[in-house]
Amino acid sequence: MKKRLREIALLIEGEVDGDGDIVITGASGIKEAREGDLTFLANTKYAHLLASTKAAAVVVEKGWKITTDKPLIRVSNPSLAFSMLIELFGPKKITFPPGIHKLALVSKEAKIGTGVSVGPFAVVEEGAEVGDRTVIRSGVYIGHESRVGSDCHIHPNVTIRERCVIGSRVIIHGGSVIGSDGFGYVAVEGLHQKIPQIGRVVIEDDVEIGANVTIDRARFDKTIIRKGTKIDNLVQIAHNCDIGENTIVVAQVGISGSTSIGKNVILAGQVGVVGHVRIGDNTIIGAKGGVSKNIPSNSYYIGIPAMDAKQFKKIYAAYVRLPALVARIKELEEKLAGPGGQTVEDAETKND
Amino acid sequence: MKKRLREIALLIEGEVDGDGDIVITGASGIKEAREGDLTFLANTKYAHLLASTKAAAVVVEKGWKITTDKPLIRVSNPSLAFSMLIELFGPKKITFPPGIHKLALVSKEAKIGTGVSVGPFAVVEEGAEVGDRTVIRSGVYIGHESRVGSDCHIHPNVTIRERCVIGSRVIIHGGSVIGSDGFGYVAVEGLHQKIPQIGRVVIEDDVEIGANVTIDRARFDKTIIRKGTKIDNLVQIAHNCDIGENTIVVAQVGISGSTSIGKNVILAGQVGVVGHVRIGDNTIIGAKGGVSKNIPSNSYYIGIPAMDAKQFKKIYAAYVRLPALVARIKELEEKLAGPGGQTVEDAETKND
Amino acid sequence: MKKRLREIALLIEGEVDGDGDIVITGASGIKEAREGDLTFLANTKYAHLLASTKAAAVVVEKGWKITTDKPLIRVSNPSLAFSMLIELFGPKKITFPPGIHKLALVSKEAKIGTGVSVGPFAVVEEGAEVGDRTVIRSGVYIGHESRVGSDCHIHPNVTIRERCVIGSRVIIHGGSVIGSDGFGYVAVEGLHQKIPQIGRVVIEDDVEIGANVTIDRARFDKTIIRKGTKIDNLVQIAHNCDIGENTIVVAQVGISGSTSIGKNVILAGQVGVVGHVRIGDNTIIGAKGGVSKNIPSNSYYIGIPAMDAKQFKKIYAAYVRLPALVARIKELEEKLAGPGGQTVEDAETKND
Repeated sequence: MKKRLREIALLIEGEVDGDGDIVITGASGIKEAREGDLTFLANTKYAHLLASTKAAAVVVEKGWKITTDKPLIRVSNPSLAFSMLIELFGPKKITFPPGIHKLALVSKEAKIGTGVSVGPFAVVEEGAEVGDRTVIRSGVYIGHESRVGSDCHIHPNVTIRERCVIGSRVIIHGGSVIGSDGFGYVAVEGLHQKIPQIGRVVIEDDVEIGANVTIDRARFDKTIIRKGTKIDNLVQIAHNCDIGENTIVVAQVGISGSTSIGKNVILAGQVGVVGHVRIGDNTIIGAKGGVSKNIPSNSYYIGIPAMDAKQFKKIYAAYVRLPALVARIKELEEKLAGPGGQTVEDAETKND
Repeated sequence: MKKRLREIALLIEGEVDGDGDIVITGASGIKEAREGDLTFLANTKYAHLLASTKAAAVVVEKGWKITTDKPLIRVSNPSLAFSMLIELFGPKKITFPPGIHKLALVSKEAKIGTGVSVGPFAVVEEGAEVGDRTVIRSGVYIGHESRVGSDCHIHPNVTIRERCVIGSRVIIHGGSVIGSDGFGYVAVEGLHQKIPQIGRVVIEDDVEIGANVTIDRARFDKTIIRKGTKIDNLVQIAHNCDIGENTIVVAQVGISGSTSIGKNVILAGQVGVVGHVRIGDNTIIGAKGGVSKNIPSNSYYIGIPAMDAKQFKKIYAAYVRLPALVARIKELEEKLAGPGGQTVEDAETKND
Repeated sequence: MKKRLREIALLIEGEVDGDGDIVITGASGIKEAREGDLTFLANTKYAHLLASTKAAAVVVEKGWKITTDKPLIRVSNPSLAFSMLIELFGPKKITFPPGIHKLALVSKEAKIGTGVSVGPFAVVEEGAEVGDRTVIRSGVYIGHESRVGSDCHIHPNVTIRERCVIGSRVIIHGGSVIGSDGFGYVAVEGLHQKIPQIGRVVIEDDVEIGANVTIDRARFDKTIIRKGTKIDNLVQIAHNCDIGENTIVVAQVGISGSTSIGKNVILAGQVGVVGHVRIGDNTIIGAKGGVSKNIPSNSYYIGIPAMDAKQFKKIYAAYVRLPALVARIKELEEKLAGPGGQTVEDAETKND
């Protein structure tokens, strides 16, 4: 694929700033770029990389002041423009032809839309529905009476249990399990007796779920992931959780039962949230944070247990100076004790 | 399904307190209940929800003082009674008919009990045994010479490696891997050389294992999960661990090699335990705790590293007041330094 | 299998110290050993177990001073020697006969080496290559144009997406997902729009990957796991990471995007590493550590956020004494206030 820079600018609705006649032969990240590649700058803080990149030209944001001798294409959103370019210059996309593979097992009592692809060794059970143009890859299991919307992509070896509801344009990566039983027991004479988990999982439109994620079905009613939310790999979402719209759940986060997360929230990697609490809209929980109570909207919390980030930083600043603080206390004690006096540490040492 | 409240009371061995003639049309949680539903109260601390629930009647514990105009059924264990009700009012349970699916692959040298269901694309290898009425779902792999007991339910895409032993009434949720190699290497000229892992995994009766769990086989001998223990999703149990009876292991816990956990222990979410230690019976480790040494029985430990909860709370109470403590130390220094004197912080600032 | 001790010594290039005529009937760990077993001592710190082991003889290192009446075999590396013995005395290894199972689905456009075993319900897509003697187990998916080297073992239900490159002698345990999309979105009018992830995953020779691991493909270019590195269960490696040679990544570690890890590094269990940082060669990060910045080579870091272990230990020593420090500050305040004076805590109490 070869195109002149000015042709590409037209495709991504940008304006050339420099020589529009140069020929572009590929697209790549700014560090990996080779000669002839077009690259992009997502953030001016990486502008120093322009000096070393081998790229032939760069996509940048309109209005940025950029010092470089490379031709630019100026657009309103470089990351977005670049995503469009990749479709053009990237490797040919793998497609999965419509049709039910002869080694798939689709119940006669399942409803399959038009243009659906069902891969080998996939199972679609009785009463399940699959929307138009959805791709069900090999080894996927779709349980009884579950519904998957249109234009979804369910990657290999995903398990979707019975009576779950998946919206449209949902992507679920390999190995994830949707609708496993909630973790609930009642103590009967000292033994843990299983509580039936008869609810469902509902995943709304435009959600993406990473690889080897687990989302448990509700005890009653539903566990719900609302539209536009993106979930990274190895995340655990327990029974009866309600995850708001456009929320970001980074890898290895765990959310306990009946917890509710707002819209536009970010839970960074390895965060844990206890059960039965609410995190408000637009809140960010920093990596590894442990949420043990309700958190208001528009907050930034970090730490275990998680607290307001400003408070955490003040405490942490003192925490790292603890050895010095101990020395200062000792010095104060010595001054007050006067010559020959005994400080607390002297006494402690003697008691050992 | 419609039943009068007094008929239901008979079924769950309870006593009606109020109008036993009302007609119940469903069963649900107290928050999700609709008109005509029967609900339950697991704990008096949720009694305030009685004012707002739409439920027609409520299952409560004998002897509780409840202020409501709704008819009640009084039982000795509301959660348990309610689980029984769900079987009655819940959605029809999905069942898996006995028989080996024609697209399953069961070795002629495997022993399959009566009433066993083996789903499509499941594999049961040579020398494996599956007990009566056990359900092996689609995509499950059962390795050579492994034994699965009776009345088990092995969900889709589970992998059970060779020579493992699974008891009766065991449930394993989707995607879990039982019997993967322990993580063991010996350094040979700077390289990590694999140590053979020739032991097994033994899972006793009445254990439930969540989705995408990993339980490694032992180097020698066995990794063992003892009877009645319940393991949540995405838990890691390393080689040669011994997990006691009736223990609860919450999601994303990781237990390192050769560690031994007692009976009736609770490891809360995201706990980590180092190798070669022992946690005593009836001990609780709070969420995200990091266990780095032996922990006695009947303890409650939290923190990283985990310590006695009472000690942790004392320290933590001081920790959150650290900025104030620093100010108090400074004030003491100023008092002692007198007018014109220099405090430690003044000196630090000058040295920056 | 019965052998005299002196015969075994020959096999493992060791020297008998004691009665070489005794008959060995098995091999086992020092705690699990039964009469007639040969066992080994990996480290002199376990030497006290020699008094209680039932083993008939012990493999130890040349030059160690050992007090026991049991016959010994002295070798240069006991762990390694013992691994060799297990091949001799351990249970018969399960092997997978060469050939493509009639229920596997291998594209005519795939290249399969000699002696390859492809299990039932495995899929090898168009353009994929599998090297000589590699074992592809049941339910494995190998995507379009991916290459797997020779002498690999890919356990059941593993998913390898398109255009990934796996070296030789690589082991991947059950349920792992290689090449899932990196977690990348660009905000467009308040919604998260997916950024195409067109790079690959490259796994070099002699890497072992545990069960239910997830390794994301790069946005561009590659995510790379370099040769000899060993990855435990449930680990998350994000897009564009570069994991150096002979590194150990323990269970449930999470590494964020574009981070680079050196050679011979150890990341202990449940460590988290933020994106876009570098951890130098030979560095150890202690269990549950949270790495938030670059870490130099040859370091030992612990804590959240991770800091130099010596610094951490000093701070932690003061941290556990915080309640005592508070008391000492109060005492100083009282002394300075004099009789009838008011301390800060008195004032705080009044303000409550």
